[in-house]
Amino acid sequence: MVVVMRPGTPAEEVAKMPERLIRAAQTEITVNLVQWADQALFTLSGDTSRLDLEVIAASPYVERALRIQQPYKLASRAFQPADTVIEISGCKIGGGHKAIIAGPCSVESAEQMIGLAGLVKSLGASLLRGGAYKPRTSPYSFQGLGEEGLKILAMAREATGLPIVTEAMGVETFDLVEEYADIIQIGARNMQNFFLLKRAGKSNKPILLKRGLSATLEEFLMAAEYIIAGGNSQVILCERGIRTFDNYTRNTLDISAVPAVKELSHLPIIVDPSHACGRWSMVEPLAKAAMAAGADGLIIEVHHQPERALCDGAQSLRPEKFGQLMASVRKIMAAM
Amino acid sequence: MVVVMRPGTPAEEVAKMPERLIRAAQTEITVNLVQWADQALFTLSGDTSRLDLEVIAASPYVERALRIQQPYKLASRAFQPADTVIEISGCKIGGGHKAIIAGPCSVESAEQMIGLAGLVKSLGASLLRGGAYKPRTSPYSFQGLGEEGLKILAMAREATGLPIVTEAMGVETFDLVEEYADIIQIGARNMQNFFLLKRAGKSNKPILLKRGLSATLEEFLMAAEYIIAGGNSQVILCERGIRTFDNYTRNTLDISAVPAVKELSHLPIIVDPSHACGRWSMVEPLAKAAMAAGADGLIIEVHHQPERALCDGAQSLRPEKFGQLMASVRKIMAAM
Amino acid sequence: MVVVMRPGTPAEEVAKMPERLIRAAQTEITVNLVQWADQALFTLSGDTSRLDLEVIAASPYVERALRIQQPYKLASRAFQPADTVIEISGCKIGGGHKAIIAGPCSVESAEQMIGLAGLVKSLGASLLRGGAYKPRTSPYSFQGLGEEGLKILAMAREATGLPIVTEAMGVETFDLVEEYADIIQIGARNMQNFFLLKRAGKSNKPILLKRGLSATLEEFLMAAEYIIAGGNSQVILCERGIRTFDNYTRNTLDISAVPAVKELSHLPIIVDPSHACGRWSMVEPLAKAAMAAGADGLIIEVHHQPERALCDGAQSLRPEKFGQLMASVRKIMAAM
Amino acid sequence: MVVVMRPGTPAEEVAKMPERLIRAAQTEITVNLVQWADQALFTLSGDTSRLDLEVIAASPYVERALRIQQPYKLASRAFQPADTVIEISGCKIGGGHKAIIAGPCSVESAEQMIGLAGLVKSLGASLLRGGAYKPRTSPYSFQGLGEEGLKILAMAREATGLPIVTEAMGVETFDLVEEYADIIQIGARNMQNFFLLKRAGKSNKPILLKRGLSATLEEFLMAAEYIIAGGNSQVILCERGIRTFDNYTRNTLDISAVPAVKELSHLPIIVDPSHACGRWSMVEPLAKAAMAAGADGLIIEVHHQPERALCDGAQSLRPEKFGQLMASVRKIMAAM
Repeated sequence: MVVVMRPGTPAEEVAKMPERLIRAAQTEITVNLVQWADQALFTLSGDTSRLDLEVIAASPYVERALRIQQPYKLASRAFQPADTVIEISGCKIGGGHKAIIAGPCSVESAEQMIGLAGLVKSLGASLLRGGAYKPRTSPYSFQGLGEEGLKILAMAREATGLPIVTEAMGVETFDLVEEYADIIQIGARNMQNFFLLKRAGKSNKPILLKRGLSATLEEFLMAAEYIIAGGNSQVILCERGIRTFDNYTRNTLDISAVPAVKELSHLPIIVDPSHACGRWSMVEPLAKAAMAAGADGLIIEVHHQPERALCDGAQSLRPEKFGQLMASVRKIMAAM
Repeated sequence: MVVVMRPGTPAEEVAKMPERLIRAAQTEITVNLVQWADQALFTLSGDTSRLDLEVIAASPYVERALRIQQPYKLASRAFQPADTVIEISGCKIGGGHKAIIAGPCSVESAEQMIGLAGLVKSLGASLLRGGAYKPRTSPYSFQGLGEEGLKILAMAREATGLPIVTEAMGVETFDLVEEYADIIQIGARNMQNFFLLKRAGKSNKPILLKRGLSATLEEFLMAAEYIIAGGNSQVILCERGIRTFDNYTRNTLDISAVPAVKELSHLPIIVDPSHACGRWSMVEPLAKAAMAAGADGLIIEVHHQPERALCDGAQSLRPEKFGQLMASVRKIMAAM
Repeated sequence: MVVVMRPGTPAEEVAKMPERLIRAAQTEITVNLVQWADQALFTLSGDTSRLDLEVIAASPYVERALRIQQPYKLASRAFQPADTVIEISGCKIGGGHKAIIAGPCSVESAEQMIGLAGLVKSLGASLLRGGAYKPRTSPYSFQGLGEEGLKILAMAREATGLPIVTEAMGVETFDLVEEYADIIQIGARNMQNFFLLKRAGKSNKPILLKRGLSATLEEFLMAAEYIIAGGNSQVILCERGIRTFDNYTRNTLDISAVPAVKELSHLPIIVDPSHACGRWSMVEPLAKAAMAAGADGLIIEVHHQPERALCDGAQSLRPEKFGQLMASVRKIMAAM
Repeated sequence: MVVVMRPGTPAEEVAKMPERLIRAAQTEITVNLVQWADQALFTLSGDTSRLDLEVIAASPYVERALRIQQPYKLASRAFQPADTVIEISGCKIGGGHKAIIAGPCSVESAEQMIGLAGLVKSLGASLLRGGAYKPRTSPYSFQGLGEEGLKILAMAREATGLPIVTEAMGVETFDLVEEYADIIQIGARNMQNFFLLKRAGKSNKPILLKRGLSATLEEFLMAAEYIIAGGNSQVILCERGIRTFDNYTRNTLDISAVPAVKELSHLPIIVDPSHACGRWSMVEPLAKAAMAAGADGLIIEVHHQPERALCDGAQSLRPEKFGQLMASVRKIMAAM
């Protein structure tokens, strides 16, 4: 950390800073003073994770406080150089293992779900997605089947052997979702629902953590840090598009999040091209791009009749299109 | 709503659309066809709130589906032309009544809280803020005193008579917060925590709903709609800065949200200049701007010693600065 | 400047850095080494304006290079503590002097221009705006009257005594615009047209520099630095809304740019609420907010019949609305 | 186009609209009225490219005006269904032909340029890039060698046979650049320098048009439309990263621009991963992603000693890294 003092700060105020910084750090850190002309700065080394930039910057004598190291620890590549590999019923994600998760946006009926599960399996998907609880912008939109949806997902798993990925929207339904799911998803709008992250930290199931719509990579990895610090190191990150001024696509896929996360963290990262673009016609090129950029997998929305889906129809692939996508993604994987 | 068909759509597919749209609307709507050259579009009138744009756009024959009316109803100015006025222990917000809420970011001790409460009251604040549960980006940061903080807030209310505003971070602590608070805050990161919005809809206390970091005004008002549709019409909106590429300030205060919300909705809207800029030196000019733009009030962070605050010190005002702010805000209010 | 080395950089590479940094700075600077555990960083003091962060960060041994001082000099408050005051035909801007610039988006005819000029003058405007060259997104839109427009502006000045503000869209028409204009505007899309900035630096007329749609404040002030470094210190900055995900307004007025520029620079800053929101109904509240935040003036679009304007009609005020705005802005100014 | 009237608009005002719209369109269009409850809307068909949404929305009776067709014509896929293929000295771009453009950010010396040209050619590049005029944020940074740089580029072309791509920063140096360059680049900051676009429209050399930092795809294609409407249909689009809140990378590569442009336009689109991320370590994965998404080529910064480059060193690849990139990009291309 670097703390830059305002030009002209009285010498006695500069002199008091080291002690203040050490006290605020709540642990032993080393503070160095560098002075020139009428200005001074301090460099801090050691464990500065408890230091709050905002609080340091509150001093009227401090011009800026800058972190030069990442504020997350357990999620960082420095802490664990080797890739985390997550295994679910024999299916691995991370460390070179790629996984394709596919299925409808929401569980609509047993018939739909079991049909689709068999289909996506036959086309090469290794996990099944489907929402029983749906976060919807409008209170008047379909909100998911709830526990009935979870039961249907379990039936689809039984029928096909595919592990299931489904979302927990809050602490109050987490237990129930945990009972049924193989991987528990935390949605983009809940990426900083800190109670939910803490609850996920106590689970023994892997967590699929989606990046918030306007989350920086640092905040994304800090959310993962909450889960790991809580005791659960099985975190799969998911880039699903960020919000920009762009309006042709629903969101803007931040493809560089893939290589960036690979540099910063040991956690696997997958890509959701369906939510990122919101247009079925663009899902396949983005899926190929994601794999070419080094993603550990994909999560894709597939529906028999998108125009009759209860949500997110515009971005769902018909089965034949999903088959095409799988074929071209396989070629990319083979090339790498 | 307008549904534009792709050029060259077969006539029989165009012919099938009206029935599909009426079925999807789940209520009686009127569908008009307009046709020219090789293209067609439908205009839909009536209650289209159950129609999902995404699902309609999923048809391979649909080029675009556009909503021409707002998707919220109860929160809209069209539904209720008169301003909503919210009253808390004799203090009113909305319809020309302005309220200044002030206090520290987080409750740290009874001494701090009672001292600050007396002080902000003497300087003209009409409500007291203070967090007992704190949403923090880092799991290693101070997370708030929890119920002890709520008890301290109640003591400060007793000592000063100021109603208290404090945040509920999840459904699981809502009951407890509801017991103590006069106004329950829902934080920016929880603006689309739909379970929390539904719980707030069942409360009989006013809700202070903060705008999400990257929420459009439509999403902001849809979040309010969740609360009102759940049964609680006492919603106070709060603009607290949005996320942009700008980096000099912590967030970017979207001052135009104030007149925009006044056009679109009957709900009161206040401004939080402290979180919007993240710099104490800029809080006063932004507070004046907010009142000049027509805001129904302000929520301001005040701390005796910001550099010793447990959070958000950089944006907290010292008491004398808050006194100055109150004086200049009063002048603006008098001028209007 | 701070240069952070990668953990584990060989000692001999660390040892070579100071000389490299000094050479790159092209002037005498002081380099300090701070070392801890397996990491090192350098602090640089003195004139680092010629050092290119990108180039330093290109070394495989450098983790990050951070500037801790602003890269602009002549435009900075540190360089010139007193406010710059710009005077045009007796009308002053800056240092407490406020100016209201008003007029149509584009010059359409002598009759329109002279009529509007008289009108805005009678309502209190102190300068006249009007575009003879119009930057238009579409090649099929009206592109301005060119030199004829400049002549009409000169007639309007003669008729009313109001100094005129008009845009120079490129170096090739700068001479002509300079001949007629009292203040030469550089538009948002040209904020980083560096040839144009250099030409403006050679002018002896004041320059009204609009902020680019996605320019940081640092880039905005660096654009001003180009003009001042070229020899023209008469620069008026103009905040006119930035581009965000927000879609209710045309752009998002960054009101905090006003107090921020006041901290960082001695240059006057005015606000253009018309382009910022793009809706006539919101121009007045934003104008009031701008003055309350401390802006040195406003630039407002006014048109007799906005629905017959050749551009920007949606944001133009009818004369009676402009009169109302002037009345309420005067009250705010009196209150401050 | 759809024009929605405000609820409660007097019947006589509704009645006047069709004539107004037809007059504003300046050509024959068909206007249809759809009416329900207390509201009305008009649908407009035919050539609406001269209609200005802003002006229509200026009427106090108009609630919203929406364009349902793209405002560009010559650049659209509808106008020309077949891909445009551009040929430069036997090298083709578009319609399945891929081109790799490589070279340093700026021309520094004949030795550097000729050396690098031979090297990138031997590694598989088909065109050479290098800037003689450099747009720099700071007036104190290296601004390019100017005409001397152009002469050096010509020498490098002579030595290697590689066609050269170099930037024209303004109309005043366009003639000179045109004389030397094989492809003339228009930089991101000049994407809406309309005088420059018009000049480019009169050139008989292909134009490489970079997307502005915050340009929508519509604005990007409208900039291309300026060039084509001016008479030059040889336009190559280049996605080079947009500005978002993201701060780990210099910009955010909008990978979905590739498939989106393929849907909307017949023009070739290439990707610049170097500027998009600003970090050499991420250039290769992004280059692979771009080709996997269907880009028609790449433009890559390569430098012998990035830490001694006069600009953009942080994102330049050393020759061996560029060799690696070429090898892996070739594998992706073979897989597609």
